[in-house]
Amino acid sequence: MLDIALLGTGGMMPLPNRWLTSLLVRLNGRMILLDCGEGTQVTAKLMGWGFINIDVILITHFHADHVSGLPGMLLMIGNSGRTEPLKIIGPKGLRAVVRGLRVIAPVLPFEIELVEIEGDRFETELCGLNIKALKLNHRVPCYGYSFELFRKGRFSPERAKENDIPLKYWSKLQKEGRVITDEGRVLTSDMVLGPDRKGLKVCYTTDTRPTEEIPDFIRGADLFICEGMYGDGEKLEKVTEKKHMLFSEAAKLAADGEVKELWLTHYSPALMNPKAEVGAARAVFKNTKAAADRYNITLKFQDK
Amino acid sequence: MLDIALLGTGGMMPLPNRWLTSLLVRLNGRMILLDCGEGTQVTAKLMGWGFINIDVILITHFHADHVSGLPGMLLMIGNSGRTEPLKIIGPKGLRAVVRGLRVIAPVLPFEIELVEIEGDRFETELCGLNIKALKLNHRVPCYGYSFELFRKGRFSPERAKENDIPLKYWSKLQKEGRVITDEGRVLTSDMVLGPDRKGLKVCYTTDTRPTEEIPDFIRGADLFICEGMYGDGEKLEKVTEKKHMLFSEAAKLAADGEVKELWLTHYSPALMNPKAEVGAARAVFKNTKAAADRYNITLKFQDK
Repeated sequence: MLDIALLGTGGMMPLPNRWLTSLLVRLNGRMILLDCGEGTQVTAKLMGWGFINIDVILITHFHADHVSGLPGMLLMIGNSGRTEPLKIIGPKGLRAVVRGLRVIAPVLPFEIELVEIEGDRFETELCGLNIKALKLNHRVPCYGYSFELFRKGRFSPERAKENDIPLKYWSKLQKEGRVITDEGRVLTSDMVLGPDRKGLKVCYTTDTRPTEEIPDFIRGADLFICEGMYGDGEKLEKVTEKKHMLFSEAAKLAADGEVKELWLTHYSPALMNPKAEVGAARAVFKNTKAAADRYNITLKFQDK
Repeated sequence: MLDIALLGTGGMMPLPNRWLTSLLVRLNGRMILLDCGEGTQVTAKLMGWGFINIDVILITHFHADHVSGLPGMLLMIGNSGRTEPLKIIGPKGLRAVVRGLRVIAPVLPFEIELVEIEGDRFETELCGLNIKALKLNHRVPCYGYSFELFRKGRFSPERAKENDIPLKYWSKLQKEGRVITDEGRVLTSDMVLGPDRKGLKVCYTTDTRPTEEIPDFIRGADLFICEGMYGDGEKLEKVTEKKHMLFSEAAKLAADGEVKELWLTHYSPALMNPKAEVGAARAVFKNTKAAADRYNITLKFQDK
């Protein structure tokens, strides 16, 4: 249903065996790309989901490792044959950054719509997903994002009867969402549906220190992708100064937010073997994974 | 003596198994980088020559595949600890391109000096090399570059005698290049040296159609690195329209310029196996090589 691919897991600079952190979210064939560092187009090509259906690019912040691949990616999307408009969303200053980087990609076969986020929160609906942004705590303005796929309730004959919906409209109403009866009465699908069911939720927070708001922002997520710039052997003082996290700090957020699964990413280039350092984080939140490039998962609704 | 590394061999876009075309030239530990597409910093890291001693970056033209990696490279050079100024040379418009791209690399620990080439030719001395630029024939202003390492003549007792150089100054003069005698006479090394000997010459022309000037520009080069965007199965009409070359056209330039060796590079992403298509070029110029990423060679003076 909801496909998630972590295209890279590196922070600061691309390495021969580790691409910079970025995420592809795909629903019904439409895609959202989160962050686009140098080389993201290459790991996206390895992932094999194509480029033409990238409708939205979300940028967390303007450090080079999150945005330096943007001109190449835009050219690649153009080469793929896209002519539909593409939306780019990011912190205030996005217009200047995109204008600067497009000095080497001035001509594209599609329009770009830019949305600058101001303030601490932002919400929109795109590609069938509810998208929320939350201001994080990094050295420059930076946002985390959540993606929610809502799920309507089951058909409920009891509710249909309560609302006096004639039997002959039940099926049509479920199918079309809205029906006008022969008598001119407007019926809507919520009149025959039970309460909304649990949908799917994925969250992505990098780069940041832990903040008080993150646990509520990520609450109940099926998948929480969080920066883990440093293993727990690193000094907290350095980590705090650089406004990043230890693995175990990400795990604490995952536990507090009661998510199902945590993927660590955005590793320091000095962190050669993240998997070997995940022990302290697992003690805090058991379902912690030290993700690797092109980790991917298909999230499905849990009940029928 | 003169180390040459072709960091990548791709044109248009970086591929999972082929980095974009760029070249490192190293003499006595100092380095010149030619072109810097997306991912050049990664293949440079694989090459292992380091970053701190990159004194000069030459840009052939401003298509994204030749310059998109510049901000990441500058940050990488900064991270390596460089504080010495760095020079960037490229076509007119360089100032605007670097200003645009540095929107994501505004703070660097070294000064950047920009040199915009105007007109058809340019010449300078950097890192102990004589560097010449020649305007090529591409869709946008584009320059080829040559690197020459000159070599002085041998010590010649005959010449020293002709110039009345007292024996006691011979050794000092060779060592120091300039000596003032007890009588106040200024002696220079050319007074004791025979004619200049053959040095080393490396040339790099991409992207371009063949031009009348290229054979003279590359004449006698030890190594000629030239674009070969298309194998000889491609239609010349398309190649001409895109202002690129067939392999055999590069080979014709190599033959006309009487170079020693030709490396093809800047392959179309559709060209999966360049080595398999080099036959027609070899028929024109025998010592043609379909280069691959990180092809490298150390060129040495030929006689003692």
